[in-house]
Amino acid sequence: MRDVSVIGAGMVKFGKYLDTSMKVLARNAVNSALASAGVEQKQIQAAVVGNAMAGLVTGQECVRGQVVLREMGIGGIPIINCENACASSATAFHMAWLYVASGMYDVVLALGMEKLYHADKRKSFAAIGSAVDVELMEQMIAQMNAAQAKLKAERAARGEAPASGGAGESRSMFMDFYANFARAHMQRYGTTKEQFARIAVKNHRNGSLNPLAQYPEVYTLEDVLNSPVIAEPLTRLMCSPIGDGAAATVLCASSIAGRYTSKPVKVLASLLSSGVDHSADEPGVVTRVAQQAYEKAGVGPNDLSVIELHDASAPAELVIYEELGLCEPGEGGKLIDDGVTEIGGRLPVNPSGGLLAKGHPVGATGVAQICEIFWQLRGEADKRQVANPRIGLTENGGGMVRGEAAALSIHVFGI
Amino acid sequence: MRDVSVIGAGMVKFGKYLDTSMKVLARNAVNSALASAGVEQKQIQAAVVGNAMAGLVTGQECVRGQVVLREMGIGGIPIINCENACASSATAFHMAWLYVASGMYDVVLALGMEKLYHADKRKSFAAIGSAVDVELMEQMIAQMNAAQAKLKAERAARGEAPASGGAGESRSMFMDFYANFARAHMQRYGTTKEQFARIAVKNHRNGSLNPLAQYPEVYTLEDVLNSPVIAEPLTRLMCSPIGDGAAATVLCASSIAGRYTSKPVKVLASLLSSGVDHSADEPGVVTRVAQQAYEKAGVGPNDLSVIELHDASAPAELVIYEELGLCEPGEGGKLIDDGVTEIGGRLPVNPSGGLLAKGHPVGATGVAQICEIFWQLRGEADKRQVANPRIGLTENGGGMVRGEAAALSIHVFGI
Repeated sequence: MRDVSVIGAGMVKFGKYLDTSMKVLARNAVNSALASAGVEQKQIQAAVVGNAMAGLVTGQECVRGQVVLREMGIGGIPIINCENACASSATAFHMAWLYVASGMYDVVLALGMEKLYHADKRKSFAAIGSAVDVELMEQMIAQMNAAQAKLKAERAARGEAPASGGAGESRSMFMDFYANFARAHMQRYGTTKEQFARIAVKNHRNGSLNPLAQYPEVYTLEDVLNSPVIAEPLTRLMCSPIGDGAAATVLCASSIAGRYTSKPVKVLASLLSSGVDHSADEPGVVTRVAQQAYEKAGVGPNDLSVIELHDASAPAELVIYEELGLCEPGEGGKLIDDGVTEIGGRLPVNPSGGLLAKGHPVGATGVAQICEIFWQLRGEADKRQVANPRIGLTENGGGMVRGEAAALSIHVFGI
Repeated sequence: MRDVSVIGAGMVKFGKYLDTSMKVLARNAVNSALASAGVEQKQIQAAVVGNAMAGLVTGQECVRGQVVLREMGIGGIPIINCENACASSATAFHMAWLYVASGMYDVVLALGMEKLYHADKRKSFAAIGSAVDVELMEQMIAQMNAAQAKLKAERAARGEAPASGGAGESRSMFMDFYANFARAHMQRYGTTKEQFARIAVKNHRNGSLNPLAQYPEVYTLEDVLNSPVIAEPLTRLMCSPIGDGAAATVLCASSIAGRYTSKPVKVLASLLSSGVDHSADEPGVVTRVAQQAYEKAGVGPNDLSVIELHDASAPAELVIYEELGLCEPGEGGKLIDDGVTEIGGRLPVNPSGGLLAKGHPVGATGVAQICEIFWQLRGEADKRQVANPRIGLTENGGGMVRGEAAALSIHVFGI
């Protein structure tokens, strides 16, 4: 397989775009990436498009990529729509990389896009809730509702007041899951709620330096701790928001990258995997894929200069520190306390603001992470630029089936 | 890029499975393909899953493949969900082929699956209607409705009876498109309605020989001509039905195929493309991709022994004869009249029964076509076996954007 480089990247500011179609968001991201690469539309030989939820949100269930790309004059080439929940566009990038790495095409576009906001919020929530086994989830909710109805009847029979609560939305079920493992981490390692909050503070501060971030506000530790509790210990500011956005990259064979740019960013490893049933002492999917990625790239965690990882919640970032081998298990809290992962630290994590502050338009997130690493490695990240980066890593997870990520992608880049 | 072979194929009988989940259909198809290949689940190194419409039909918008595969113990590997409307699983097969051809993985699964039947038929129709630009379609329907309301008001003002009809369902809009080009072909070349009907008769006769076909009934020319008119000249028996189904294939590097089977079926060409704006005298997408496929495979149309093509309607098959270069433009009618494309003819087309009779569970269709060619080339097609086949071709189209196929895939196979 031949070497592949990223030669252009572009994205729109993530945000709430109730009156802007996905076509417009995607077009702006693609045009920005093409301009960045110095590549014209007709030079694109194939396109892979990641989107997770347009079917349920806009009704555009099929040919999502073609609808967007044909409108802007890109056609007559392979266009593939791929989906892997929150890892949809890292998967699209992986496929685009494979097209080039295999030798089949020289210049390929990877696009990630998502419109989650809808005037009818139920559509957004139904879409987000579909990143699990929907059939099982419906059964679980039915069982929970039945159990609660029974409990309610029993309490009523005893003349007690009804208990509050009900079967959660799937969105909060995801956050319930994050809250569960955050509590387990606290119990096992003594990790504190303040440490989780410190991650949110860091990522929001980073986001304030990123003109493309959806939430540029800076928050104090107290702000984060005092924001509304979603599921103990998670507060609202520790959870990634809903958003709309699009991000695009142009990949080409490294052998011809010099035609387009003097600063190509090389793909050192492109890996995708999924969860599997395993025993408690076997590594989880992130650890396993990270090991494969390091081996493939010929680097270790100590060689990394900058990371964009999937902070769908603040505790997730802390645990992923450990899973990526940035520190020993249980030492994630110390890493954030010591400032190691700050932009000015030894190993900056989520300088873009991450999902927490830059935003998380599901199908756009993976490619947006890659855009950030592209800019960082080229020294183009302006106020949030990390010092002298050589090697960058992106980690993007998607969905959940039987308690593990349905999709997990890790990319390593070098300049 | 290295050579790739298909070593196993399996599918379920296409049909109406209101009470059977997609998990069950997919599991049966995958197990059948694995058994056929002599490959165990744990030997599968990656899986690409094509599905077009589960989001709108079952609500499983995300991680469709993982939900199905993890349940049957397949995980810990790359699982990619891909969508290209009716060409979803040919696209999945193409990606699976690319994984192997690139050298990245040796043994890869390609699965296509679809559940279209739903107790609430509106869900099925909304899904099928989403294989076009939904935003544009809604605008068109609104304009048509406004025009019709205006007409109705004018007729009422003149004291006339209201005209019948209204803005069509998107399903019938697809068939309107097929009817339009069928009429154009009749006008330009003198093609007759009987010739279209003869294709339906052939494919239904072939389907009657296929135990996996959804509609095994045999029909006479009169039956087809006298079945209800969908859109002149299309009658119901000239249109592909709604269906549920799943189909799977196992691909591996040709260099190791001998470990599994003495009759591997080699992939001679795997191509995917999409429509593009072009002038009237430039070839359409099918012609263009066919030329590329022949070149890649080192064969011409005269070398083909058997074809499975996308007969979403009977006129489509006739026109695709010409686009694939099986005859000159305008000679498609003669080809069916002369019996060339019958199972016993010089170049059998759709011996499986095609979409018309075997059925068309959208996301399963592409891989099901490949299953049929696999069986035909290995001499395992029983009552519908064509004589001494050496080279087979599949053609699978999907969706429509700006008047051309959103996705078009052609594969050439040899034994």
